[in-house]
Amino acid sequence: MFGKEGADDHHANASDMMEPIQDIVTRICFGEIWQRPALDLKTRSLITLAMLVATGRTHEVKIHTRGAVANGATREELKELFLHAFPYCGIPLMVDGMVACEATLNELGVK
Amino acid sequence: MFGKEGADDHHANASDMMEPIQDIVTRICFGEIWQRPALDLKTRSLITLAMLVATGRTHEVKIHTRGAVANGATREELKELFLHAFPYCGIPLMVDGMVACEATLNELGVK
Amino acid sequence: MFGKEGADDHHANASDMMEPIQDIVTRICFGEIWQRPALDLKTRSLITLAMLVATGRTHEVKIHTRGAVANGATREELKELFLHAFPYCGIPLMVDGMVACEATLNELGVK
Amino acid sequence: MFGKEGADDHHANASDMMEPIQDIVTRICFGEIWQRPALDLKTRSLITLAMLVATGRTHEVKIHTRGAVANGATREELKELFLHAFPYCGIPLMVDGMVACEATLNELGVK
Amino acid sequence: MFGKEGADDHHANASDMMEPIQDIVTRICFGEIWQRPALDLKTRSLITLAMLVATGRTHEVKIHTRGAVANGATREELKELFLHAFPYCGIPLMVDGMVACEATLNELGVK
Amino acid sequence: MFGKEGADDHHANASDMMEPIQDIVTRICFGEIWQRPALDLKTRSLITLAMLVATGRTHEVKIHTRGAVANGATREELKELFLHAFPYCGIPLMVDGMVACEATLNELGVK
Repeated sequence: MFGKEGADDHHANASDMMEPIQDIVTRICFGEIWQRPALDLKTRSLITLAMLVATGRTHEVKIHTRGAVANGATREELKELFLHAFPYCGIPLMVDGMVACEATLNELGVK
Repeated sequence: MFGKEGADDHHANASDMMEPIQDIVTRICFGEIWQRPALDLKTRSLITLAMLVATGRTHEVKIHTRGAVANGATREELKELFLHAFPYCGIPLMVDGMVACEATLNELGVK
Repeated sequence: MFGKEGADDHHANASDMMEPIQDIVTRICFGEIWQRPALDLKTRSLITLAMLVATGRTHEVKIHTRGAVANGATREELKELFLHAFPYCGIPLMVDGMVACEATLNELGVK
Repeated sequence: MFGKEGADDHHANASDMMEPIQDIVTRICFGEIWQRPALDLKTRSLITLAMLVATGRTHEVKIHTRGAVANGATREELKELFLHAFPYCGIPLMVDGMVACEATLNELGVK
Repeated sequence: MFGKEGADDHHANASDMMEPIQDIVTRICFGEIWQRPALDLKTRSLITLAMLVATGRTHEVKIHTRGAVANGATREELKELFLHAFPYCGIPLMVDGMVACEATLNELGVK
Repeated sequence: MFGKEGADDHHANASDMMEPIQDIVTRICFGEIWQRPALDLKTRSLITLAMLVATGRTHEVKIHTRGAVANGATREELKELFLHAFPYCGIPLMVDGMVACEATLNELGVK
């Protein structure tokens, strides 16, 4: 399951400082926001990645690329999402996001 | 058509300084990036809005809310998109985006 | 009470789109995060304002200036907080924050 | 003189909260950084505007458009500077900066 | 002393390019801003960290975590500061800041 | 030539995901924007670096430091550009940019 996996990936060995974050991610982010029915999980993955590339959060782009694939996004769709960042965020953020996404897709063997 | 409308909305009376921007928006952004087939127009509208709320571009949120409605997004889906910004961008950016989106939907009479 | 007041100020007439935000602000932000005992309310007000000036959220600086005063911060301390933004955020963000804070203090009659 | 004018424009009636900012702007920013000889004033105006458009500081774009004109920049050069923001910062920030710059040039009657 | 230590940590072997930065950090930031009496050093450490987590400056979070400990902040208070970033800055920036802070506290042996 | 070199540096082995980015960088950014005559290449290098330091794009600061040297900028001018970021962007972004620039200049043997 994505929520659990995402949280686990992030906080494999939750310390005293990471434990409340793990709770927030699992309970509020995945448990509450992601479960609302008005948008399907694949669309949520795409808009999450759009927010992350726009704010330069490379590490989270990798995590959510895994989630997007689990939620049905293809390599072609993800490539397109990062290209779409060019006119709205500029080349440097687009490149950072695409590099992180591509590395993750290659690790996953997604073609 | 969205591309033309969006550009026109932005640059109704293009001056010498705005004219090359109008060209970039029309030819590169709408003419080239938005026309690529791997993502449909509604999905492009949603990820555009996701990038704009994440970077606090309120004026452009209004323009692209109009585009998203033209491309088939519902009030419920747009509401959901901005709520999804809460865990990734924080409350202040989510609120700014939602207020701008709601004002535009109300102007358009979209329920 | 600050939590209720802050939420009310923000969402006086909660619409269908603002209502889940009001719930998030009241229940999660004020009800959960702000109630944790390890930092007192005045310190939370100061670090909230520090985050808001650093990200250029002028409207929220005004709201949280009211909260900071309610939580015991003085005009002198708030002035100092925005000056402290100079070396870490630069002059433009410092000025925007100070102007918003000062306008609110003057409205409140805080000297 | 630019330094004095810029500071005055900013803080016409310095209050108790604005007075230390006026001191920082006059003494450190204009008095110390801008006076270093390795870059001429016109180049400093251009890189200042480049930093301000990249960070979306519209109000300061207006102030420094005045300074850039005083330091010898032409309408054509300023137009070009904001167009140059397209590939590095994206369309929304470029548009915001160009609109602010153009309004100021028109106020000044610079053709 | 913190000011000196912070600067030294940053610029151990000041080169021709780093030397004026070392001067700015020592003389203006620590020598002038941090010495103003209206906020105590521990509060300044907390608002500095709040500004740094909000802007994603991970390297500086580490430096100022050391400073905060030197100025009397506890592990519990620092943990709380980064959790407080969740509603205002979102999860990705909160996580980056908490990870950097925790690594530094562990290096220092602060429990 | 800078355009070609910059693109090559960036995308040495263009993959399916990087290939459209290489096209955008080569054709639109370097081929179209950089070729406009109203600003010379050295000035374009300086304003590019100003935008990159302001947005914390360290990797691109390195690439464009090489370009700036190829376009005639001296070590002294580049040092001055990053110092100029202090009052507008704050110390953390100035330091990140200066460190990246200095490392590149040292690699190039530019004194």
